[in-house]
Amino acid sequence: MKSLTILGSTGSIGQQTLEVADHLGMPIIALTAFNNKDLLREQTAEFSPETTVLGSEPGGIDAIIDVAENSGADIIVTAIAGEAGLESTLAALRTGKRVALVNKEPLVCAGELVMQTAREFKTEIIPVDSEHSAIFQCLHCGAGQAGYTKPKQIKKIILTASGGPFRNKTQAELKDITPEQALKHPNWTMGKVVTINSATMMNKGLEIIEAMHLFDVTPEQIEVVIHPQSIIHSMVEFIDGSIVAQMSHPDMRMPIQYALTYPDRQPGLTRPLDLTKLSGLTFEKPNLDIFPCLNLVYRAAKAGTQACATLNRANEEAVDLFLKEEIPFTDIPVLVEKALNALEK
Amino acid sequence: MKSLTILGSTGSIGQQTLEVADHLGMPIIALTAFNNKDLLREQTAEFSPETTVLGSEPGGIDAIIDVAENSGADIIVTAIAGEAGLESTLAALRTGKRVALVNKEPLVCAGELVMQTAREFKTEIIPVDSEHSAIFQCLHCGAGQAGYTKPKQIKKIILTASGGPFRNKTQAELKDITPEQALKHPNWTMGKVVTINSATMMNKGLEIIEAMHLFDVTPEQIEVVIHPQSIIHSMVEFIDGSIVAQMSHPDMRMPIQYALTYPDRQPGLTRPLDLTKLSGLTFEKPNLDIFPCLNLVYRAAKAGTQACATLNRANEEAVDLFLKEEIPFTDIPVLVEKALNALEK
Repeated sequence: MKSLTILGSTGSIGQQTLEVADHLGMPIIALTAFNNKDLLREQTAEFSPETTVLGSEPGGIDAIIDVAENSGADIIVTAIAGEAGLESTLAALRTGKRVALVNKEPLVCAGELVMQTAREFKTEIIPVDSEHSAIFQCLHCGAGQAGYTKPKQIKKIILTASGGPFRNKTQAELKDITPEQALKHPNWTMGKVVTINSATMMNKGLEIIEAMHLFDVTPEQIEVVIHPQSIIHSMVEFIDGSIVAQMSHPDMRMPIQYALTYPDRQPGLTRPLDLTKLSGLTFEKPNLDIFPCLNLVYRAAKAGTQACATLNRANEEAVDLFLKEEIPFTDIPVLVEKALNALEK
Repeated sequence: MKSLTILGSTGSIGQQTLEVADHLGMPIIALTAFNNKDLLREQTAEFSPETTVLGSEPGGIDAIIDVAENSGADIIVTAIAGEAGLESTLAALRTGKRVALVNKEPLVCAGELVMQTAREFKTEIIPVDSEHSAIFQCLHCGAGQAGYTKPKQIKKIILTASGGPFRNKTQAELKDITPEQALKHPNWTMGKVVTINSATMMNKGLEIIEAMHLFDVTPEQIEVVIHPQSIIHSMVEFIDGSIVAQMSHPDMRMPIQYALTYPDRQPGLTRPLDLTKLSGLTFEKPNLDIFPCLNLVYRAAKAGTQACATLNRANEEAVDLFLKEEIPFTDIPVLVEKALNALEK
């Protein structure tokens, strides 16, 4: 049985990873958190890791980097949110082991560096995001690396998006959205920033940048489709016109487990999906007037890594201002666009 | 470029295979037909095969078997309908080359023998039926044989069915169905017997038996779901709860081409699918009062190959009687059931 180190074990994905590890009987080598001391203590009591680190303590960040690179676990789950996750992810990628990649920022802000490090150390990156796991499954379908579809066979990647809570709103209605309203997501339970990013669809945008790096495709090869039921988690269209899709109930324990067991599969914690009990699966094009962040992402993705990093940082700052009720919801893309404009001057 | 021999080139799939071969630039080594002399002559003029055989001529059947085994083509497409296809398919399987399997009967009537012959001669079987191609794609996804999902990872196969033209009829209404009505299929253009089998869902039933042999699963692991839009051609549910589905517009040239290019993919003749232009994808359980053939198939599949062959023969006879207007539509399953009952005495 493979062993696990979880960077960011007290976050939403970290906690669910522990649930899956427990289900699979995988031993835990190390756990790190930033400042949720109480939960880290509970997790330590339950899973008996060899090492735990609290990042907010003196020397904590260096200790996390050290754990990422030297814990000796077979799989390192990198779930440290925000830009702080980059250094720890790079450290994990230097192990030559498997990295189950949860945090978006490393690929968004330093995609080339991340992929190059993985190639250099022959480290497997298995994405945990439900969309990227879906694409990975469509390209592998239970196969070993030998079974990976060649990029030239991919016509496009169809990233599905629930559309968040506001897809049927008008631009005028969006102005008055409060943080409280934006924090209610119809299908997924996630962290605060991710939930706001889901409401602006910036989250989907960052996934475009991730997918571009992970699957070696151009931004033009990635299409976003609104799929309100969140049953199909993404699709791959091949050059012959065949589309392969992956589905399940929205439950992060599915892609987490797949990242841990791949190329094998094991019985999981997700309840089986009965398609005949659904009212139907629908698909629509995203309204770019309601979701201007999508256009900003394509612009940044074409401009390169520096623009992607700028977009991400400007978005984090804007979301923070919105959560503090200092700017309206509709100013989030405005601030991001300003940052991109400034970069181009 | 690989070369092709087509057994049954004047049938619906045979003709479409020539269209795809032409598109891909694959040379044609041999063509065989049963009695459509004119079309075979036309095809010969267009594709210049080394050999052509007309089965209805004296010695024609033996000549077809000889071509199946000795044409020297890299891929043999076996599209001879009915039980007559068995011997030619077995001959093709003795080549150790690739067999693109179109005809259902070999697997339905002699599944063990077919699979054993393929194993013995290390012959690749690539299914051409849209459903089995879908399942094959979900299990391989562009991978080489190394990428094949292990049967133990498969929880179940979800065979989709359009439900044919009569899925919303009552039993009473079914009694008066004429051959003319039954020959109109909403989504696919196919041969006569296949179209009637689609209306009774016996076609789907035979596909259950095929899938059982091709993918090494039990009848209980195969579920039929009505999907009226015929966009998802079938799915695989893995043991971890993940479902992988394959879709495209209903167009047999897609699975035909995949069987010829696998594990590669090439640009195809099928128009791209835009999911946002569909009204939605729906799924329902089949009504077994309207489609008693499905239950008969599960019964035969559990009983073994002799029962499957009996079911197929009885069904062919019953469909023939129905097309001659000698029995009502609803007597097709009645005659099949009688044949199964007789076998068990």
